[in-house]
Amino acid sequence: MTGDDGGRPRPAERIVELGDFAKLDVDRMARTGVPEVVFAESKTVEQTFAALEGLRRANPSSPALATRCPQPVLEQAVRYFESDEVLVDEVARTLTVGPLPEPIGRVAVVCAGTSDLPVARECLATLAVLGVGAVSVTDVGVAGIARLFAQLDTLRASSCVIVVAGMEGALAGVVAGLVAPPVIGVPTSVGYGVSAGGLVAAAAMLASCSPGLVTVNVDNGFGAAAHAAKIVKTAYSMRTADGR
Amino acid sequence: MTGDDGGRPRPAERIVELGDFAKLDVDRMARTGVPEVVFAESKTVEQTFAALEGLRRANPSSPALATRCPQPVLEQAVRYFESDEVLVDEVARTLTVGPLPEPIGRVAVVCAGTSDLPVARECLATLAVLGVGAVSVTDVGVAGIARLFAQLDTLRASSCVIVVAGMEGALAGVVAGLVAPPVIGVPTSVGYGVSAGGLVAAAAMLASCSPGLVTVNVDNGFGAAAHAAKIVKTAYSMRTADGR
Amino acid sequence: MTGDDGGRPRPAERIVELGDFAKLDVDRMARTGVPEVVFAESKTVEQTFAALEGLRRANPSSPALATRCPQPVLEQAVRYFESDEVLVDEVARTLTVGPLPEPIGRVAVVCAGTSDLPVARECLATLAVLGVGAVSVTDVGVAGIARLFAQLDTLRASSCVIVVAGMEGALAGVVAGLVAPPVIGVPTSVGYGVSAGGLVAAAAMLASCSPGLVTVNVDNGFGAAAHAAKIVKTAYSMRTADGR
Amino acid sequence: MTGDDGGRPRPAERIVELGDFAKLDVDRMARTGVPEVVFAESKTVEQTFAALEGLRRANPSSPALATRCPQPVLEQAVRYFESDEVLVDEVARTLTVGPLPEPIGRVAVVCAGTSDLPVARECLATLAVLGVGAVSVTDVGVAGIARLFAQLDTLRASSCVIVVAGMEGALAGVVAGLVAPPVIGVPTSVGYGVSAGGLVAAAAMLASCSPGLVTVNVDNGFGAAAHAAKIVKTAYSMRTADGR
Amino acid sequence: MTGDDGGRPRPAERIVELGDFAKLDVDRMARTGVPEVVFAESKTVEQTFAALEGLRRANPSSPALATRCPQPVLEQAVRYFESDEVLVDEVARTLTVGPLPEPIGRVAVVCAGTSDLPVARECLATLAVLGVGAVSVTDVGVAGIARLFAQLDTLRASSCVIVVAGMEGALAGVVAGLVAPPVIGVPTSVGYGVSAGGLVAAAAMLASCSPGLVTVNVDNGFGAAAHAAKIVKTAYSMRTADGR
Amino acid sequence: MTGDDGGRPRPAERIVELGDFAKLDVDRMARTGVPEVVFAESKTVEQTFAALEGLRRANPSSPALATRCPQPVLEQAVRYFESDEVLVDEVARTLTVGPLPEPIGRVAVVCAGTSDLPVARECLATLAVLGVGAVSVTDVGVAGIARLFAQLDTLRASSCVIVVAGMEGALAGVVAGLVAPPVIGVPTSVGYGVSAGGLVAAAAMLASCSPGLVTVNVDNGFGAAAHAAKIVKTAYSMRTADGR
Amino acid sequence: MTGDDGGRPRPAERIVELGDFAKLDVDRMARTGVPEVVFAESKTVEQTFAALEGLRRANPSSPALATRCPQPVLEQAVRYFESDEVLVDEVARTLTVGPLPEPIGRVAVVCAGTSDLPVARECLATLAVLGVGAVSVTDVGVAGIARLFAQLDTLRASSCVIVVAGMEGALAGVVAGLVAPPVIGVPTSVGYGVSAGGLVAAAAMLASCSPGLVTVNVDNGFGAAAHAAKIVKTAYSMRTADGR
Amino acid sequence: MTGDDGGRPRPAERIVELGDFAKLDVDRMARTGVPEVVFAESKTVEQTFAALEGLRRANPSSPALATRCPQPVLEQAVRYFESDEVLVDEVARTLTVGPLPEPIGRVAVVCAGTSDLPVARECLATLAVLGVGAVSVTDVGVAGIARLFAQLDTLRASSCVIVVAGMEGALAGVVAGLVAPPVIGVPTSVGYGVSAGGLVAAAAMLASCSPGLVTVNVDNGFGAAAHAAKIVKTAYSMRTADGR
Repeated sequence: MTGDDGGRPRPAERIVELGDFAKLDVDRMARTGVPEVVFAESKTVEQTFAALEGLRRANPSSPALATRCPQPVLEQAVRYFESDEVLVDEVARTLTVGPLPEPIGRVAVVCAGTSDLPVARECLATLAVLGVGAVSVTDVGVAGIARLFAQLDTLRASSCVIVVAGMEGALAGVVAGLVAPPVIGVPTSVGYGVSAGGLVAAAAMLASCSPGLVTVNVDNGFGAAAHAAKIVKTAYSMRTADGR
Repeated sequence: MTGDDGGRPRPAERIVELGDFAKLDVDRMARTGVPEVVFAESKTVEQTFAALEGLRRANPSSPALATRCPQPVLEQAVRYFESDEVLVDEVARTLTVGPLPEPIGRVAVVCAGTSDLPVARECLATLAVLGVGAVSVTDVGVAGIARLFAQLDTLRASSCVIVVAGMEGALAGVVAGLVAPPVIGVPTSVGYGVSAGGLVAAAAMLASCSPGLVTVNVDNGFGAAAHAAKIVKTAYSMRTADGR
Repeated sequence: MTGDDGGRPRPAERIVELGDFAKLDVDRMARTGVPEVVFAESKTVEQTFAALEGLRRANPSSPALATRCPQPVLEQAVRYFESDEVLVDEVARTLTVGPLPEPIGRVAVVCAGTSDLPVARECLATLAVLGVGAVSVTDVGVAGIARLFAQLDTLRASSCVIVVAGMEGALAGVVAGLVAPPVIGVPTSVGYGVSAGGLVAAAAMLASCSPGLVTVNVDNGFGAAAHAAKIVKTAYSMRTADGR
Repeated sequence: MTGDDGGRPRPAERIVELGDFAKLDVDRMARTGVPEVVFAESKTVEQTFAALEGLRRANPSSPALATRCPQPVLEQAVRYFESDEVLVDEVARTLTVGPLPEPIGRVAVVCAGTSDLPVARECLATLAVLGVGAVSVTDVGVAGIARLFAQLDTLRASSCVIVVAGMEGALAGVVAGLVAPPVIGVPTSVGYGVSAGGLVAAAAMLASCSPGLVTVNVDNGFGAAAHAAKIVKTAYSMRTADGR
Repeated sequence: MTGDDGGRPRPAERIVELGDFAKLDVDRMARTGVPEVVFAESKTVEQTFAALEGLRRANPSSPALATRCPQPVLEQAVRYFESDEVLVDEVARTLTVGPLPEPIGRVAVVCAGTSDLPVARECLATLAVLGVGAVSVTDVGVAGIARLFAQLDTLRASSCVIVVAGMEGALAGVVAGLVAPPVIGVPTSVGYGVSAGGLVAAAAMLASCSPGLVTVNVDNGFGAAAHAAKIVKTAYSMRTADGR
Repeated sequence: MTGDDGGRPRPAERIVELGDFAKLDVDRMARTGVPEVVFAESKTVEQTFAALEGLRRANPSSPALATRCPQPVLEQAVRYFESDEVLVDEVARTLTVGPLPEPIGRVAVVCAGTSDLPVARECLATLAVLGVGAVSVTDVGVAGIARLFAQLDTLRASSCVIVVAGMEGALAGVVAGLVAPPVIGVPTSVGYGVSAGGLVAAAAMLASCSPGLVTVNVDNGFGAAAHAAKIVKTAYSMRTADGR
Repeated sequence: MTGDDGGRPRPAERIVELGDFAKLDVDRMARTGVPEVVFAESKTVEQTFAALEGLRRANPSSPALATRCPQPVLEQAVRYFESDEVLVDEVARTLTVGPLPEPIGRVAVVCAGTSDLPVARECLATLAVLGVGAVSVTDVGVAGIARLFAQLDTLRASSCVIVVAGMEGALAGVVAGLVAPPVIGVPTSVGYGVSAGGLVAAAAMLASCSPGLVTVNVDNGFGAAAHAAKIVKTAYSMRTADGR
Repeated sequence: MTGDDGGRPRPAERIVELGDFAKLDVDRMARTGVPEVVFAESKTVEQTFAALEGLRRANPSSPALATRCPQPVLEQAVRYFESDEVLVDEVARTLTVGPLPEPIGRVAVVCAGTSDLPVARECLATLAVLGVGAVSVTDVGVAGIARLFAQLDTLRASSCVIVVAGMEGALAGVVAGLVAPPVIGVPTSVGYGVSAGGLVAAAAMLASCSPGLVTVNVDNGFGAAAHAAKIVKTAYSMRTADGR
């Protein structure tokens, strides 16, 4: 047998070159369910705007998203893009350009403390771009666990639960032991001393004794939202397929 | 407002005490979608068998699973339990007692190398206990990437893809960049030198630039299967709910 | 002023030399509230027994304790010492020689999982030697948190709570957020992958957002019991002082 | 049996929501002996002041404390709050609002070097808010150990000793080998090279051969004070209970 | 036998002293095939310029290179040196003084993402100084692997392939599994959370299952280029030797 | 443009499936210059022999190599395979089956100490299978550097130098500062205390100030030999191409 | 026997209190051969000057030293102290107040690269304060090892050799293999990637196969000089004692 | 100037080759003051005995030492070598062959606990071979610091003090703050949890605030003894030189 993708016809993947610094993977949405997104932290304002425009041109009906935007990107965006196209979240440091799709499903984004809010907001901005509904629950860390119990119905009624927590990251395991939907832990870099940088929260989530808890990189709200969106879309595609 | 779960009637959770060494959480399946499972590595043969029997008694229609079974557990199980009840996988080191449910959905379990097989087999045994269908794809590591491309159709047709890989763990990110279903990476302890113990594979999966890849602890095939099962069950419950 | 302990008369501390391998600090109990204890792991059977006898001779009314005893120490102890003097705990790997004091106070020793039992038992054996009462609560890990809630009254009625937990160690922080007595976390080496060796549990306990949680070394049940005993004795000495 | 807190009537815990960014756990003092405290480092000035006011309103007779206050918080506090209500410690970076309770007991706060003073001062500010007496001993590191010996009487006369030390953190173990009250080590981030960030001091305190030494996170003066306060309060409540 | 280089006449190595701060190893090119290069990051502008001039004087027909140049070095260089002598790359932060040699061979410098460009540009500047030809391929990371496949012919036609990648560094192993020329991985410090600083990318490249992949330090574009140049020069010297 | 390999005809890669545990990448030699090799450490004797036979059948004129062979593999090999086909190196733990090719070029394999010999021998066995000539230099560590200087002519006359060293791994950087051919460092797991496991040697080689030194994983003699062979083959192919 | 220093009369150690922030250990020179020195990095200008004055007053015939001085300390020192008393080294960041003693012995301070100079200069300033002679050898790193060989006579004629090196720190082991005097390695924080912060250099020096090499903390030029001074003084005191 | 050792006549260093596995550096004693010593841990019995014989033959008047001897080496040595030549220390795991030199000077070897004895004994065996006198002080760890104070006179009367300590390694810094001779810390691998393997003890010794403390690798009693011997010999050679 041959290892190449062989006989099966596969549509060629489009690649859009931007100068000599980028090759946009504009069919990533079709291929993986999540579009290419601009990680703006180490890019110039010009590179970020060029990438967003390139993504918009290739897929005019979909919004384009930039995450981890430095302050200048957020400030200049409102002048550079059409005002009815652009959406800036200063806390999440996200920039969205283009019309948001109609949301399906509902993902609960749970946040352990006030300091974890920026990461939770990056989740929310990403879910909006991916067309998935969301509900936000904040400041329910384990030091005062009654706050979490008061929100359990909300979590149990969701298709997926994202838990954003820094320091020892215990909230993710506690939630995973209490609810039925798939739970994704997002460790954050909130902490100091042994927990500075978020590695302890990440390790604690990986080590959790609560079955089925999965984890993404520290502060990676985008990644958790992408996984959640895939879960919701898989469920909807199964429903649709079945419905026929 | 009050923080307690308050007015809403919640069914009391049953707890089954075994001697002074264990309290079985026998309603975990109802609460979280995944039953309590016996992690046998640091238990005596007697403790493991007692726990399996306790779980079976509390939920007679469901199978009970023990993972990471030491050799004596696997050997004595076939004599201790009814022969038509017990299922031993020597490679996965799993022990299943009781009738397996009819599977729903299909999860692809992809394995980078021959040495990663025990972890992949733990995934498969767990999926069977949780009532989720599975397909196994082995030895498609990135050193000979054509082997992976030959299997892409299989992966793309699944509800969820689990990628089991040690060493540098690159396969998980490559798969996540190629397919639409949610992808779960399971780093393994296969490796030596800098990658001994699997921490590099785990970190590489967390750090992957492929959006939506999530990770579990090193060698935690059970955990990946539990998350995959939650995804499949969520999808089915949404379909059912919708069907009404 | 002078830095030496100077004018104040201080009772000389007794030191008992054993061959050329040990100098017993036999007044440690009087000085610090905790006697010298034999860490038997890296000693020969002869050295361990000689040290226990030396401690007994210097303080005939107090018991002597050896922790982390290798199997030969435990086996030969019952023949070597008077049978009514010796107490062996095979699970805790402790050996006690001499009469136990009448206990005061009550410390709750809480254990996350069955695998953490040996460390909890080392706590209990140490508390007995130090003359402090104890109550044991096992298998109440956060994956099934209802098991913990059922025991809260017991914990709240204690003078001090010791929480023994491996893997992600979350139980310690959860308990510290729920009860008033001082809480001591004991991380254990139970775990695998990122949590192998117990360092993640230790770091998670140090990083906990629950105020007032303190931590000891991995598997150091003895150390936690020593701190708990100091707390109880301080309370009793204050009460006695006050009572006059 | 049922795992829920069940039949026993438990007073509902009050939760005070502040906008969409915080849920104050205002009954934490009643439940755990330590009130919710504002960790101001990653909050805006507005969020910090709002939280302090919320805590004050819910418990008017108790002071509210903010730790790790950025400079703007400390500067604006004296204008924002009533001048007879507010207490700022520039070295400790703490802000206290409201009347301090009458202190009980006495905790010794021992500091290895001048550079460790900010952490020791955070201990002292916290103890004041929690209503516990304190005595401060500074610059008695092990390089000139005679300085410590000159202070031993002070330490031995306390209900609890907190030792604040950076670099190799040896002072905590030395003190724990010399005095009877419970000893809490606070590693600090003072150091460079291998000891940068305080992790070596933390590990050395955990590894100490002096029995009963416990440890908190690096620079966590607040946490050590909270544990010390719980010890003192436990002792007083036992005395009171006994007095009846 | 004697261990000294003994009877064989060896030309004395020239050393050029600069004040009391440097000893230039000006015959390094003759000895090792790579000249001494100025690592400017921790030097003053004056030290950097003095070293470049010293290298130029000792070997007038060869260019001198400074890497990791702080901004002031790059800015002042164009005034300090003859304009037809100096070459500044702001992205690579390199400064070249003197005529570039005629290039031989062809090295492919492959870059995973836009953020890795500065390291790739340091490779290119170094190869130019060392007299080796190069072709640049950018933004072909594994999240959109089709972009890499479109460039395989270019890579396969090179004498050596350098792969520059941050985050999980998977691209290097994927390329090494696809092409015949020697492959050198350069991990970059691009990343966050677990991959901050580039150590995970470095470890992943070392751990790769693709045979023959070698690695240099994080961000060490210069080192990879030096190794590539040695490969090309070895090949040419063998060809020349053979041609006689 | 399209990202697929597109219009260019590419010969299909052959994949040979062995049961359900392996897919041999039998055209890896043609594609990358290094054949698939059996890493025997975590395979059964049967799996290892089956893989070697599969590789031999697919490429009858080439030898097949297994590395890291457990003792049973080495012992049973001499009976299982034809005696004139099989070559066992007990020190290197390698097993070669089939006729060795005529060697080209010359690689120097330099070994710091006697304890590093097994890794050096794995290099030599691999070079023999890949058809590359080699010369071995042993026990020339930096503690007695005169031993190295006596061998410099041998090193300078090679096409590539592999330096195998444990502990602080300094020999690799010293050699790279003295000779012109490309130098590959192989850190070994020889060492104890801070250097146990070889990570310090690996990091020291990556950090070396000698330009052009590259590194492979700890104990990866096979990988260093594979890179060296690619260097030699690239040189020869350039010579051949040029000769036409 | 008693553990106290007992019968032998010991002169009381003087302690000088400065406000509530410091207790000067002014007899440290008499007790240990090295005086208390002010680590100025985390002190205010006022605290540093007060400590220096306190040390000068207690021992008027000896100089006082401050290391790691922030820029303001260095700048204000020349105005604050008598101009004939003060000595500032901007590179070493040291401040010396008072007359330097006549030097005895000779210590060689060897520096691997230009970037390591500040640490070497701290050695030299400390040796001057401690009354020990010194000779400086710079920029003799192993990449051009001939530079070191040209200086061997100087090293061999010293009473002690201090080797200051960053990156992979190999120079210390190479020197220790070549000369008879005691060798002290000082790892520096010069480096990047895997060697950032100096931990690899420190570990490499600890792991060195050259017998008798000892190590101090990263960048701790002061500590190496203190040890070297103790060696020289011990030798002189033995000579003097013997001379009587 | 030229970098080679140049004009100065240097006696050729003798190298003795043993088969193809070792090159003995038999003039190391003359060059560095410490002879080549056989690290037996990873050598066969035959290799160890051959190396010892080679060293004896090259320097018949000096003893030869093997450290870290596996049990078979120690057992067979008494038969293999002349009985009046061989000296075995089972605790230290050392083997000495040949007549010990007359000792000069006196080094104190201080041991924190009974478990650290093997490392202290390796120090003592090495000092004997190097011809340096020694005094042993055991079991004086900081948990009972009075034991140390009782030995201070012994320490203060030595030319050098070696402190062997595991766990948190605090004893080394405490000693260095109390005595004038140079102090060398030897961290040991005694410990568990965070201090397993000895890395915390090593880091704590490097980080110590006591000036002049130097450190060697974990368990490296041989290295500490070698440094101490160099100190004593330097002092004696200075005295001798002066005496002329």
